[in-house]
Amino acid sequence: MNDLTGRMLIGASAIYGSGGVHHATDPATGARLEPAYGMGTQADVERACALAWDALDQYRETTLDVRSGFLHTCADEIESLGDALIERAMAETGLPRVRLQGERARTTGQLRLFADVVREGSWLEAHIDPALPARTPTPRSDLRQRHIAVGPVAVFGASNFPLAFSVAGGDTASALAAGCPVVVKAHNAHPGTSELVGTAIQRAVRASGLPGGTFSMLFGPGREVGSALVADPRIKAAGFTGSRSGGTALMKVAAARAEPIPVYAEMSSINPVYLLPHALKTRAGALGRAFVGSLTLGAGQFCTNPGVLLAIASPELETFVASAVAALEESAANVMLTPGISDAYEHGVSALAGHERVVTLARGLPAEGPNRCRAAWFGADADAFLEDDALQAEVFGASSLLIRCRDLAQLVEVSEKLEGQLTATLQMDDGDADMARTLLPVLERKAGRILANGWPTGVEVSHAMVHGGPYPATSDSRWTSVGTLAIRRFLRPVCYQDLPSGLLPEALADRNPLNLWRRVEGQLSRS
Amino acid sequence: MNDLTGRMLIGASAIYGSGGVHHATDPATGARLEPAYGMGTQADVERACALAWDALDQYRETTLDVRSGFLHTCADEIESLGDALIERAMAETGLPRVRLQGERARTTGQLRLFADVVREGSWLEAHIDPALPARTPTPRSDLRQRHIAVGPVAVFGASNFPLAFSVAGGDTASALAAGCPVVVKAHNAHPGTSELVGTAIQRAVRASGLPGGTFSMLFGPGREVGSALVADPRIKAAGFTGSRSGGTALMKVAAARAEPIPVYAEMSSINPVYLLPHALKTRAGALGRAFVGSLTLGAGQFCTNPGVLLAIASPELETFVASAVAALEESAANVMLTPGISDAYEHGVSALAGHERVVTLARGLPAEGPNRCRAAWFGADADAFLEDDALQAEVFGASSLLIRCRDLAQLVEVSEKLEGQLTATLQMDDGDADMARTLLPVLERKAGRILANGWPTGVEVSHAMVHGGPYPATSDSRWTSVGTLAIRRFLRPVCYQDLPSGLLPEALADRNPLNLWRRVEGQLSRS
Repeated sequence: MNDLTGRMLIGASAIYGSGGVHHATDPATGARLEPAYGMGTQADVERACALAWDALDQYRETTLDVRSGFLHTCADEIESLGDALIERAMAETGLPRVRLQGERARTTGQLRLFADVVREGSWLEAHIDPALPARTPTPRSDLRQRHIAVGPVAVFGASNFPLAFSVAGGDTASALAAGCPVVVKAHNAHPGTSELVGTAIQRAVRASGLPGGTFSMLFGPGREVGSALVADPRIKAAGFTGSRSGGTALMKVAAARAEPIPVYAEMSSINPVYLLPHALKTRAGALGRAFVGSLTLGAGQFCTNPGVLLAIASPELETFVASAVAALEESAANVMLTPGISDAYEHGVSALAGHERVVTLARGLPAEGPNRCRAAWFGADADAFLEDDALQAEVFGASSLLIRCRDLAQLVEVSEKLEGQLTATLQMDDGDADMARTLLPVLERKAGRILANGWPTGVEVSHAMVHGGPYPATSDSRWTSVGTLAIRRFLRPVCYQDLPSGLLPEALADRNPLNLWRRVEGQLSRS
Repeated sequence: MNDLTGRMLIGASAIYGSGGVHHATDPATGARLEPAYGMGTQADVERACALAWDALDQYRETTLDVRSGFLHTCADEIESLGDALIERAMAETGLPRVRLQGERARTTGQLRLFADVVREGSWLEAHIDPALPARTPTPRSDLRQRHIAVGPVAVFGASNFPLAFSVAGGDTASALAAGCPVVVKAHNAHPGTSELVGTAIQRAVRASGLPGGTFSMLFGPGREVGSALVADPRIKAAGFTGSRSGGTALMKVAAARAEPIPVYAEMSSINPVYLLPHALKTRAGALGRAFVGSLTLGAGQFCTNPGVLLAIASPELETFVASAVAALEESAANVMLTPGISDAYEHGVSALAGHERVVTLARGLPAEGPNRCRAAWFGADADAFLEDDALQAEVFGASSLLIRCRDLAQLVEVSEKLEGQLTATLQMDDGDADMARTLLPVLERKAGRILANGWPTGVEVSHAMVHGGPYPATSDSRWTSVGTLAIRRFLRPVCYQDLPSGLLPEALADRNPLNLWRRVEGQLSRS
């Protein structure tokens, strides 16, 4: 059942697109991969959106058990693709087997976690303010609130997580959990992986007895299909992980609609890591090696890659530099996801290397073969960073910049100058607590996640996680795209006033048949 | 202490604006009211925003007790303004004493409700996922999440609620509760009322020992000051209640910023009321009278005014029409808020009266004096409504349109054609339940609040309330501007990973010193 066909999935159908063809490339060799994928057109967008719209009212009112079971089936179907999925993903992305196996586990774990979230039901945010008929001067009506699906959601597959943030990744899982039909725009870097996962979801839709329009997956050349999708009046939200230019382009399309919609775009972050003085005193060498490990992991192709290090100049800092330089110069050049990403990396690294106020501290081992990421580490002083915004542009890949500051005041000044970030990390010992306390309010304003003594790469899928942050890290700092709270992005509240009990949704029924935590007169209760 | 000065409030100062002068008008007489108000400039916007920014880190970390106490003091200070506030508001708005006294009670009640919300602390949404050091293949870090203030907020006073949705209204109360400094752009229709309430808040800031920049209030001619405020990089969100053109203009300013920000604009709604067949059979006459009561309340100047009635043609519907016509023809013309609103009302009513497919069903009693709202009720058939979008434009004031449908299918078709709404109301008896069940999924997609057998005017300030809805009712259907959940608009999540306990915010400390409901490993707990 895993033979690739090159077809898109539009509701229950599989259709070969008429908008030209596209082949995937094996970035490790530059070889073209079969089959040819047929690209979608405006008419395909129309059809997928019409089916999603038709599915909405039924899908959003599926019982918690049915929807939860559907998400479990999605996970099961992905697992049943077996090794064919891993092998195709390896060929299309250059990522190693172990990484993709881990990512598959994250993807299915994520679907099952959302299945639990759906069943637990707190996402409904049920509120009941009982009628107060005797209240003076005016009685109060019976008021009940629940959250419902916003409507069909457009999801854009990300190149750097071909499973966990692609066709059935975090955006799709949280949108389906919220009761939203999903139309995926698959990433052209891994169409075969997308087709495999898409057909798994399509099978889960069928097996769960859901309307076919609950899930569709389109291919498209360039940005036309994605823009048309976000512009379609039946789409009510979009999830995107990718470049700043891609994300802001979708934000513009969404804002220009007759009815503007939210775009949850996760775009650009350099994830500052602070090397505080006492930490450098006790473990500069180990920190240097650990930094290089985080920087070069997965050829640096993570949103949370440590793209800038900040420290006050000191002899211990130079020990850190020596350790990191030694480690970096031994780091092998790994395959990048696509020729385009590799080109952009080379361009970004060249720009830094040629910048008059930037010095090259170290490069990794030379590349053998195409599309390799030869790690790069640069240094600049804080004055240069403060004077040139270009120095905080993200270079996607294993590139980082060390900023040496004169003192704490300048470290704070540089921090205030930073754009919004997904993460900020403090390498600190007990003696650094006062300095950390000075930095924390700034970091809270700048980042969605603040770490101590870890590295930002590695994002846990859990309840407390925030993978988000002020612009341009994301389009909107009020949300997270990873973790269970990601479901909230696709919900909106509805209040029912004096609705007869026979018409009330089950979540708001008097006897609490779903056994939900609800707020009654504002107080949490499960009775 | 209540002598009016014509000055703006910038942090702890009171400053007479240099950007020209403006006088309020008594709409009941057309008379000019003293004093002259000095209008603000770009420099005043800069200063207020700089002070708000300086206040942010301190104000957002005030203890729950201090912030809660501050909101109580705001309410106390407004009450201590005494009758001078009511009299000035009467003169500036034409609204009657009893209404303004009720609105003052709502305003102070709202502040005290948010004081309780702050203290209870669920808005912090504390989450703890404890470390799992023994987990394989990788250990899990300690992850904790809380919500923090988004930053300084711009609030636009609304003309139609000079107390409850103006200087210290719902937007200000919820933003201050969230820990956000507030810069108010006062509405020019009631500058004296604004000055009185603004000075009350300024006194509360001082009495609570908070930084002066926690609250500022600016006047401005036209839209320049408001636009400059929303464009200022230190402002991180805006709350607005007013016209569709005003709201969409602010949305454009916000989207065009280097860092786009959310604008919570509540703009335009015609609040469909469905007269279902069995309800008409049993109580057409009473429904007609009740409709006119809701339509003409406060000269129809509510966001939730019933601007369109939908029904299937029947003899009972004509009984309803006769009853409503009789009641409407006896309704007195009430003073509107401003000459501009009165002009716009006359313009909107004239357009409907002159529309070739619209008939005038009834007009209220002729006006005596300037700026009076002579109620108007029109009729059209569903085909006309389906063919002309102009028929669903909001006419702010006591104007409504009855749409006669052929059958249920056409009623559904008209419903699907409606733009987003704040409310939708079903007048129904038990025998209408099936029809209501058919309409409900449509209404859930169209409106933020669904009522049965009530009238949409009258918005309860409680936990379950939703005063929001799909565009253009509001800019963003994911939120409510009335009720306790309004606080969420001004918060964003931050995750702390492995932060030393000495640096953790109190809300996330191990022993739960604030006695919060928190989610530990996703489960609600108060231990």
